[in-house]
Amino acid sequence: MLEKIDLTKSLGKKEYKAKMAELEPKLAQLQRDLKNMGVPVMIVFEGFGAAGKGTQINRLIEALDPRGFTVYSTDAETSEEAMHPFLWRFWTKTPEKGRIAVFDRSWYRKLLVDRYDKKTPKKDIPIVLEDIKSFEKQLTDGGTMLIKFFLDISEHEQKKRFKKLMEKKATKWRVTEKDLDRNKHFDKYLEMADEMLTKTDTEYAPWTIVEADDERFATVKILTMVVNAFKERRKKEKSLVKPEIDGKFNGASLNDSVLKKVDLSKKLSKKEYEKRVDELQKRLKLLHSRLYAERIPVVLAFEGWDAGGKGGAIKRLTRALDPRGYAVNPTSSPNDIERAHHYLWRFWTKMPKDGHIAIFDRTWYGRVMVERIEGFCSTQDWQRAYKEMNEMEQQLVNHGAIVIKFWLHIDKDEQARRFKDRQDNPEKSWKITDEDWRNREKWELYEQAVDDMLVKTSTANAPWVIVEGNDKYYARVKVLETVVNAIEERLKKEK
Amino acid sequence: MLEKIDLTKSLGKKEYKAKMAELEPKLAQLQRDLKNMGVPVMIVFEGFGAAGKGTQINRLIEALDPRGFTVYSTDAETSEEAMHPFLWRFWTKTPEKGRIAVFDRSWYRKLLVDRYDKKTPKKDIPIVLEDIKSFEKQLTDGGTMLIKFFLDISEHEQKKRFKKLMEKKATKWRVTEKDLDRNKHFDKYLEMADEMLTKTDTEYAPWTIVEADDERFATVKILTMVVNAFKERRKKEKSLVKPEIDGKFNGASLNDSVLKKVDLSKKLSKKEYEKRVDELQKRLKLLHSRLYAERIPVVLAFEGWDAGGKGGAIKRLTRALDPRGYAVNPTSSPNDIERAHHYLWRFWTKMPKDGHIAIFDRTWYGRVMVERIEGFCSTQDWQRAYKEMNEMEQQLVNHGAIVIKFWLHIDKDEQARRFKDRQDNPEKSWKITDEDWRNREKWELYEQAVDDMLVKTSTANAPWVIVEGNDKYYARVKVLETVVNAIEERLKKEK
Repeated sequence: MLEKIDLTKSLGKKEYKAKMAELEPKLAQLQRDLKNMGVPVMIVFEGFGAAGKGTQINRLIEALDPRGFTVYSTDAETSEEAMHPFLWRFWTKTPEKGRIAVFDRSWYRKLLVDRYDKKTPKKDIPIVLEDIKSFEKQLTDGGTMLIKFFLDISEHEQKKRFKKLMEKKATKWRVTEKDLDRNKHFDKYLEMADEMLTKTDTEYAPWTIVEADDERFATVKILTMVVNAFKERRKKEKSLVKPEIDGKFNGASLNDSVLKKVDLSKKLSKKEYEKRVDELQKRLKLLHSRLYAERIPVVLAFEGWDAGGKGGAIKRLTRALDPRGYAVNPTSSPNDIERAHHYLWRFWTKMPKDGHIAIFDRTWYGRVMVERIEGFCSTQDWQRAYKEMNEMEQQLVNHGAIVIKFWLHIDKDEQARRFKDRQDNPEKSWKITDEDWRNREKWELYEQAVDDMLVKTSTANAPWVIVEGNDKYYARVKVLETVVNAIEERLKKEK
Repeated sequence: MLEKIDLTKSLGKKEYKAKMAELEPKLAQLQRDLKNMGVPVMIVFEGFGAAGKGTQINRLIEALDPRGFTVYSTDAETSEEAMHPFLWRFWTKTPEKGRIAVFDRSWYRKLLVDRYDKKTPKKDIPIVLEDIKSFEKQLTDGGTMLIKFFLDISEHEQKKRFKKLMEKKATKWRVTEKDLDRNKHFDKYLEMADEMLTKTDTEYAPWTIVEADDERFATVKILTMVVNAFKERRKKEKSLVKPEIDGKFNGASLNDSVLKKVDLSKKLSKKEYEKRVDELQKRLKLLHSRLYAERIPVVLAFEGWDAGGKGGAIKRLTRALDPRGYAVNPTSSPNDIERAHHYLWRFWTKMPKDGHIAIFDRTWYGRVMVERIEGFCSTQDWQRAYKEMNEMEQQLVNHGAIVIKFWLHIDKDEQARRFKDRQDNPEKSWKITDEDWRNREKWELYEQAVDDMLVKTSTANAPWVIVEGNDKYYARVKVLETVVNAIEERLKKEK
């Protein structure tokens, strides 16, 4: 992509001033409009060293309301960041509705600077490419505008700029040995950049290559591009047809539901239960410190029917864990900050760092259950979500995490018994709400939704484990045992 | 405080079981009640090495709903944390309403482990003590329950425990050279602990010393204490008298208002303005990179009348700044997460790290202006706030920050002109809302509130600068000049 770029383009001072006087007020107005429309915007600046990213960002934001954007500088990962999947630090920075996030270098670091410096192993490149593409697709599908600039300068111009920087004491520190090395091997670096640009130039997040040998030309190109993109988006927002909201329930899957085949007669005696819980907890306790030592993160996702026994199962797990090494994340309806972000954002921010365990009591799968059933998101949204959730889990696995998803299953009669028991028992009555009764009326819809979910999101790396839950003893032991076995198996591989 | 403690106390296994069977369900119930009442709880575990903090935390949380608490382990500061005032990392972890935060070591690290290891310089001890006391007072005044345990063991018992840990390969790593050194100089360490306990044992956050040579005795003492404290709080919540809400406006200050004396005739010609802005921005640009190099954080707080020119003044500042080194934080009415925390929490989380500039467009002073006037907080709340805000700013200054607060002042006629101008001008009409008109009707109340604020929160280290704002040129230059001068003065001292 870079080969054919004409870097001799330039712009006179007068023409530049005239263009800017025209573009700046337009940009300011468009920013306000997109803010009011609640559009989140991400603008990425990549490019060669000394291509002028800082200068161009400055000129862009000069036209913007400073209360509406944040600029992020992407340096090498901190130790905290390195203990998460590499996109985690960008997920946490995705802007809320109506805000603009500007990135000076970005997730592309991994394919450019870090690749050149051999910090990104060659074998990881295809995975990184996939991860980036799904990250960008998820965000743009979710409504984020993504604008990507690559600032292109010639080898000669780069050399000249480095030289100029090194001449002054105040700017000398900005040129590193590595910069000079990359200038010396400019062709190699250019080849990497070219591959990156070609492979990540998608219809939902295309690259704009900016001829940056001439600063003024680059500025006007960038602002023009942003103005046009904002304008187009504003137009699109105005003409937005209300998306279809339909859970698409036709009852087709109902008769041969996976759930129908679950053997709910499985049970354990109290004695057997106590013996095995005790034994499993002892093993888990030891495993937890080994997980910590080996820096393996664990994600345990709990879903299931109301009164299915999630709380009890989680408690039997956490009793065996060092409280400094795990967190239980309850998931209820999103608060207003969460609502202003991509629906996966609130889960990304809670993903465990290496060596830690994150337990989710209800999860991202709400998207294809309650949100599908209640019409809280569009048909497209929940249909797309299966793939998005698979991608998220795969990224966790790629980073080294153990991911297990539990469906705590009971039948409708058992639920009725437990609801009644909760209602009659003053110590348990806090556990039951009107909403539980309302959800129960939609049992058949949930059954279909769960069926679709289990089929579409059971992956080799992040399997669903259906827990036969009519007998609490049996269920708790199965959960504990599944976790213990998965960790033991993984630790064997580590050796 | 530790001298008189009888460490021979112990509890038999049978008695322990009976007590726990009684305490655990009570605790579970109380947790639910406090959650429903929206009480945030912080529980601190401090004590000697090997005193069993981990074990005791485990036993306490076993009785709790894991969805309702988070355990934080307080290690040495990360590099990110070290670039903020030392309480910053605890402010960011203060629990929201209804949640429990448990701290395994805490802010007291600074007075104990870090002091013993000479990481806390001796001269800082009085400041650290003050900061901790105001932190705890602010939180408890704001409604947080704070429970502090100090686990006390004898020198002999500690030695025994270290020995036992070192015998096994799996636990050997837990005993460090420093642990052994502290055991050798147990008396010295005990003396420091004693001073810490005595000086931070307040009526709002008292210490409970736990005799921990016997683990069972300690557990029962801790749970009993928590149950009693929770019970007392529940009772208090139930009998809560509605706090008085009164802005206490009596017009007393009106005639000799500070604001009345401001000379609003000051102005600059356009030519002079452009020349000086240009020159000041050039200086500021250079100063910004020196701030970064010297790792000095800067906090700029902007308050003022609606249409007073905050936005314009901020923009003239940010144009001169490297976007990677500053953030503009707009403050509007708190969202629901912010509302569920102490009112200063949302500002603490946005305080700049060393070398960065944080600009606040409206600030924590909303507490003593809009919240006082509109009755959004109780009389006590806003009256207490002056001191709390002074304390916060002092902590920033202690950490090395430059703190400047601007009041952008215009008179009522000028505001009318600007409101009208905004309304008539389609490009500016987004800047004016019905609320602006409503606030204008309360001009006299704001005048009194601002007066009180300026008097009570102008400190030597964090002064208010009143900006004569009827002439925008004059105002912008004054803001820029004040910032430039303050930074230059500070940099002189650094040398």
